[in-house]
Amino acid sequence: MAEVVRFGVSLDRELLERFDNLIKEKNYSNRSEAIRDLIREEFVKREWIEGDDVAGAIVLIYDHHRKDLLNKITDIQHNYQNVIISTQHIHLDHDNCLEIIAVRGNPKEVKKLADILKAIKGVKHGALSMSSTGKEII
Amino acid sequence: MAEVVRFGVSLDRELLERFDNLIKEKNYSNRSEAIRDLIREEFVKREWIEGDDVAGAIVLIYDHHRKDLLNKITDIQHNYQNVIISTQHIHLDHDNCLEIIAVRGNPKEVKKLADILKAIKGVKHGALSMSSTGKEII
Amino acid sequence: MAEVVRFGVSLDRELLERFDNLIKEKNYSNRSEAIRDLIREEFVKREWIEGDDVAGAIVLIYDHHRKDLLNKITDIQHNYQNVIISTQHIHLDHDNCLEIIAVRGNPKEVKKLADILKAIKGVKHGALSMSSTGKEII
Amino acid sequence: MAEVVRFGVSLDRELLERFDNLIKEKNYSNRSEAIRDLIREEFVKREWIEGDDVAGAIVLIYDHHRKDLLNKITDIQHNYQNVIISTQHIHLDHDNCLEIIAVRGNPKEVKKLADILKAIKGVKHGALSMSSTGKEII
Repeated sequence: MAEVVRFGVSLDRELLERFDNLIKEKNYSNRSEAIRDLIREEFVKREWIEGDDVAGAIVLIYDHHRKDLLNKITDIQHNYQNVIISTQHIHLDHDNCLEIIAVRGNPKEVKKLADILKAIKGVKHGALSMSSTGKEII
Repeated sequence: MAEVVRFGVSLDRELLERFDNLIKEKNYSNRSEAIRDLIREEFVKREWIEGDDVAGAIVLIYDHHRKDLLNKITDIQHNYQNVIISTQHIHLDHDNCLEIIAVRGNPKEVKKLADILKAIKGVKHGALSMSSTGKEII
Repeated sequence: MAEVVRFGVSLDRELLERFDNLIKEKNYSNRSEAIRDLIREEFVKREWIEGDDVAGAIVLIYDHHRKDLLNKITDIQHNYQNVIISTQHIHLDHDNCLEIIAVRGNPKEVKKLADILKAIKGVKHGALSMSSTGKEII
Repeated sequence: MAEVVRFGVSLDRELLERFDNLIKEKNYSNRSEAIRDLIREEFVKREWIEGDDVAGAIVLIYDHHRKDLLNKITDIQHNYQNVIISTQHIHLDHDNCLEIIAVRGNPKEVKKLADILKAIKGVKHGALSMSSTGKEII
């Protein structure tokens, strides 16, 4: 069971007032939660540089009419099934698909997969959302 | 039907050789596709600043044991159903969940939703993947 | 005179230990200073989006042999003297110059100046370092 | 002497028209220069990850009234003189200083110096502008 400790932070009064406004605007219930998020964000950045087990999502936009595109995207995903958990497919309009691939594993492999998918002709845009497995950020 | 045109780009020979190596490493089949991706990337950045219809994904990591957390996350998603398409939920381990929310709509509203979800106590990390509806980037 | 207040932050013990290691590695003398920097960083990001008085630096790399390049760069800087404080010029090697322009003023104008300088033929790279006047972040 | 080659890029007509508008807005004189900048940007990003000789600037904002602050900042800069070329100092107002340190050398060392300076108590903000020596991007 996680044990919670409390420590003091000293801050200029004016800066604190501005911080309180900022976190209210961002919907935080209290300062601790806002500061925890700033701290966790630093750790998640690190996990993607130095870690060996991360999680996230690859977002692709493509025109499914492109010849062989669906086959290519599926073939590649099968080659990388060790880092792919599942895939969500959305028909945005007559031509455009939004495909979101939930990924988990080694950050280098996940980035490589994102690069390969993005480079396919017909894939208009690819974005990699870098998050965490949550194990290291309590 | 989209009409393709061709134009010339002049580049230092040495820089072009290095570019060819870079795009081979990134799996591009040819220079045009690599350059198209660089150009599209600029447009997608713009869409999130100036546009009114974008697509993407919000990635959340949270501990589902937290009291009321699932209810809160679900309630908020219902309030923002105008920008949410669908949600994918993955059990990463005994405690941690990876939830990926496919989003589409006004970039300000999508960002607001991401901020609100991220600020919930128990949500360890939130990331917003900014992509496009594909309509404006052929 | 700035008045300093103190408030408590609660954090999981394990996360706090990892945070202590991180800030030691980054040379922070104590937690308060590290957390203040995370908070200030958020404000500086905001100043560049919503503020009207920011400070920073535009870094340019160019080959001074390019015909008319020095004239162009100087002419443009004179047109934008309202946001330019001073310029530092370094001869990196026989061909390449590093020019660092200290800027202060409206963020939109500063970005516009950076865009214009970067677009000049012969300017190989341009980067904008976004900082603050310090007035709003005590 | 650098040798310039020319190659063809094929692009959807509508996307090309939008690209032409974008680069006009950003003051580019022609497509080649705009595309060269996109390509060079990729190389500069790589130099900071994999390279061993980069250039840039560290921007600091600090209140010079802070006890010992000037001494600390100067001492550290002397310890890192192998990556520091020169320093530009600007008095923003009665309290705040903008200091811009021109840097060149190993990217890891430059980042370490930026981290150390940023962590000093009294330094309100630190930003690292990542550019290039220009040698590798013609």
